[in-house]
Amino acid sequence: MSAALASLYAQHLDQVIHDSDAALAASGHDSLLIAAGTPRLRFLDDQAPPFVASPHFLHWLPLTDAPGSWIVHVPGRRPRLIFLQPRDYWHVVPDTPQGYWVEHFDIVTVADENAARLELERSLGEHSAVLGEDGAAGSDIAPNNPPALLARLHWTRACKTAYEITLMRAASRIGTRGHLAAARAFAAGASEFEIHLAYLAASGQTEAELPYANIIGLNTHGAVLHYTRFERARPDARRSLLIDAGGQYAGYASDITRTYAAEPHGDFAALVATLEEMQQILCLDVRAGQPYPELHLEAHRLLGGVLAAHGLVRCSAEAAFAQGITRTFLPHGLGHLLGLQVHDIGGQQSTPEGGRTPPPPEHPYLRLTRTLEPGMVVTIEPGLYFIPMLLDALRATPAGSDVDWARVETFMPCGGIRIEDDVLCTADDPHNLTREAFAALA
Amino acid sequence: MSAALASLYAQHLDQVIHDSDAALAASGHDSLLIAAGTPRLRFLDDQAPPFVASPHFLHWLPLTDAPGSWIVHVPGRRPRLIFLQPRDYWHVVPDTPQGYWVEHFDIVTVADENAARLELERSLGEHSAVLGEDGAAGSDIAPNNPPALLARLHWTRACKTAYEITLMRAASRIGTRGHLAAARAFAAGASEFEIHLAYLAASGQTEAELPYANIIGLNTHGAVLHYTRFERARPDARRSLLIDAGGQYAGYASDITRTYAAEPHGDFAALVATLEEMQQILCLDVRAGQPYPELHLEAHRLLGGVLAAHGLVRCSAEAAFAQGITRTFLPHGLGHLLGLQVHDIGGQQSTPEGGRTPPPPEHPYLRLTRTLEPGMVVTIEPGLYFIPMLLDALRATPAGSDVDWARVETFMPCGGIRIEDDVLCTADDPHNLTREAFAALA
Repeated sequence: MSAALASLYAQHLDQVIHDSDAALAASGHDSLLIAAGTPRLRFLDDQAPPFVASPHFLHWLPLTDAPGSWIVHVPGRRPRLIFLQPRDYWHVVPDTPQGYWVEHFDIVTVADENAARLELERSLGEHSAVLGEDGAAGSDIAPNNPPALLARLHWTRACKTAYEITLMRAASRIGTRGHLAAARAFAAGASEFEIHLAYLAASGQTEAELPYANIIGLNTHGAVLHYTRFERARPDARRSLLIDAGGQYAGYASDITRTYAAEPHGDFAALVATLEEMQQILCLDVRAGQPYPELHLEAHRLLGGVLAAHGLVRCSAEAAFAQGITRTFLPHGLGHLLGLQVHDIGGQQSTPEGGRTPPPPEHPYLRLTRTLEPGMVVTIEPGLYFIPMLLDALRATPAGSDVDWARVETFMPCGGIRIEDDVLCTADDPHNLTREAFAALA
Repeated sequence: MSAALASLYAQHLDQVIHDSDAALAASGHDSLLIAAGTPRLRFLDDQAPPFVASPHFLHWLPLTDAPGSWIVHVPGRRPRLIFLQPRDYWHVVPDTPQGYWVEHFDIVTVADENAARLELERSLGEHSAVLGEDGAAGSDIAPNNPPALLARLHWTRACKTAYEITLMRAASRIGTRGHLAAARAFAAGASEFEIHLAYLAASGQTEAELPYANIIGLNTHGAVLHYTRFERARPDARRSLLIDAGGQYAGYASDITRTYAAEPHGDFAALVATLEEMQQILCLDVRAGQPYPELHLEAHRLLGGVLAAHGLVRCSAEAAFAQGITRTFLPHGLGHLLGLQVHDIGGQQSTPEGGRTPPPPEHPYLRLTRTLEPGMVVTIEPGLYFIPMLLDALRATPAGSDVDWARVETFMPCGGIRIEDDVLCTADDPHNLTREAFAALA
C-alpha cells in the first residue's frame, strides 16, 4: 500500500494546503498553528484518559501518537512539524517520524514542552490562527480558534481525498474483521463482554484505539441506541445481537452496525432481512446532488412499508409514515458524515462561511442536512426498534390504534435492529466501503 | 458480603461525615456540595472518554455510574443525593439506587441537568464549599474547591475505614484474577496485546474500568516504566514479562506488578527471585510510625546488596548505595498511597492544613513522604531495570567503573523487574492485600 499511498498523500497534502490557504485568506490570517493536543488529567488526579490527537492535526498527517506536537503552516512555505519527543524512560516515547509523509515537512524535534513553545513563538504573528484546546501550548500561547476559519476548514473536510478514502478503506477492513468475529462469538453463545473482547482481538484494537465506544446489545439491550454496558453474564435466552462498532486507521474511522437473529427462520430474522433490503436501497441513493434530509425521509417512507409488510401496523405504509408512527420505531437520524471523527464535523453546515441548515423539526436528531457531494463518506443506518418508552407514548395517541400491539409484543424481546454501512459518494455510482470490506474478508 | 458491608458502610459514612464536618468548620464553610462530574467532550467533537466519577463523590458512596449527580451535605442533617437519571433511550440510564447505602441518604431523583441545578441552588449558601470541575453544574454554580477544605479531606482520606479495606480486598481479587491469566498467557507465548486481552477477560474488566492503563512489557519493553503500547506481534524470543495492572471495585483500586522469566532456571529468574525476597522484607516494614521515605532509602540499601550478590557491581552493597548506583537501576519511588485513586492524593502532605514534605532531592519521584499510620494502604514496588539511557549516563561517571558492564549486558534483553504489592498498615503487623488475594485464588 505504501508506494501508492505516497503519491496519494502528496495530492492530499496539496489539497489541504490549498484549502487552508483559502481559509486563511478569507478569514484574514497569515499563518496556521495546529496543536495535536495534550492528555487532560482527571479532576484532582495524575491520571488521564487515552490521548486522541485533534482532527485538525490528523488532517495534515497520519501521526496519531504525537501529544504536545504542532503543525505550523505559512502560505507559500513548506509546512513544519514541531515534533515533541521527550527523552523519557517513564513512558513510551513517540516513534521518530518515518514514512511517506515525512519528506513533505520540515521537522523540528524538541525534547520538552518549553522547547516546543519557543519554536511556536517564533512562528506566531499578530494574524496567526491557533487551533487547539485551551492550555494546549502552556499559558503563553492561547489558541484563538477563529470561527470563520474553522467553518471553512470543516466545510471542506467533508469531502475526502483519494488518500483519505484509502485510509477509510483500511479502517473498514479493521472493523469488518471485528464484526466477523463478533458474529461467531454470538453464534457460540457469548456474553456481551465476551463479544466485545472477541471484537477487540479480531480487529487488533484496544478500547482506546476504537473510533467510538463499542455498542453491543443482546436481546432487549438492542433497544437502547447506545448500549455500552457489556453484561458479563451470558443471557438466559439468546435471541438477538445488535453490534455497532468501528475501526480506526491513521485517525480515520469506520462505523458499522449489524444485527443478528439467533433463530435463522423466525419472524425477527425475516424482519432483519427486510430492513437490510431497505438499507441497501438507501445506500444506492448516495449520489451527488442528493439532499441528505430527503434520504432520511425516504427511509421513513420505506420503513412504513416494512411495518405494514410485517404486520406491525394495520394501516398502509403511507399512513404509517404520515402519522409519524415510523418515528417511534426509528427515533434517530439516517446517518452522518464520517471521517476523522465518527460524527465528522460540519454535517449541518449550509455554507463554507458557517451557515447552518437545521434538521426538520420532527427529526431533530438528524446530524447531516447537507446535499451530497463527491468525496463525502456518509453512514446509512436505518433502524427499527422496540423501545418501551416510545411505544408507550405512541399507544396513547390516536395513531396508536393503527398498531398491532400484540404483534409488537412478540418482537419486544429482540430489542431492535440497525444495519449501517459507510458509503462513499462519487460523481457516479456510490461505493459501499463496508460491503467491499465484508466481501473481501468473509 | 452485603450484610457485613452494610454495617461497615454505616461506620464509614459516620467517619466521612465526622471528617467533613471538621474540615468544613476549620475552613469556615457551612455546607458541602460534591459533583460526581460529567463526561468532557473531546476538542470540537461530540465524543467523550469514559466517565470516571470524582474521588470526592465516591468517598461518600459506591456509585461509579452517576454522571451529573451531586451529594449535598449540611452538618447535622442527613446527606442528600441529587441523582440524575434521565429518561433516555439513547444511552444506558444509571440504575435506580439500591443496596446497603441507600437508606442513609435522602435521594432526590431528577431527570435532567436543569432540575439538578435547581435542587443544588436550593442548597447553595454564601459559605458553601462546592467541589468539582469547572462547568460541573452548568454556568450558574461555579465550583470553588476551597484549598483549605480540600487539604483536610485529602489528609484524612489517606487512612481507610474497614469498609474501604473490604472494597480494596475485592479490588485485589479482581486484579489477581487478571494476573493469574496473564501469567498463563505469557507461558503460552502470547503477545503483549493478547496478554492484555487475557487480563481483561479474566478480571472481568473493560479498559475503561481499569484503575489505570495496563502496563504490559515483554523483553526490553520492561525497561520502560509505563510501557502502554501493546505490541500486536509475538516477539521472536520470549524472555520476560513485566505486567503492572490493577483491579477496580466500587471506585477503589488495586495496583499489582509481577515480573516473570521465561527460563525458570536462568540468571534473570534468579534475579527476579532475589528482588522478590527483598520486596517481601520491605512489605513487613509497613508499620505505624514508619516514615515512608526511610523505607524508600532502605529499599536502595537492599538493592545495593542485590546488585552485589548477582555480580552487577564489583563494589560493596554499601558503596553501590552510597555512590547512587542503585538510583540508576531503580529510578522511581518505592510506592505511593492507594485508594480511590491509583496514586491517592495527599502522599506528600505534611499536615492536615496542607503543608508539604518534598521528597529527598536525589529521589524526586517519591510520591509518598508521610509517616505511616494505621489504615493507610501503600504500594511496595521496588524495581531493578536495565534502562539504556540511564546506564549510559552512569557509565560516564566515576561510579561506572564499579559496574560489571559485561554482566549488565547479559540482562539487557530482559528489560527489567518490578514486584508490587498493596499493603495495609495496621496498629500491629501489616496485611498484604495482594498476597492474600493470590493465596486465595492461586
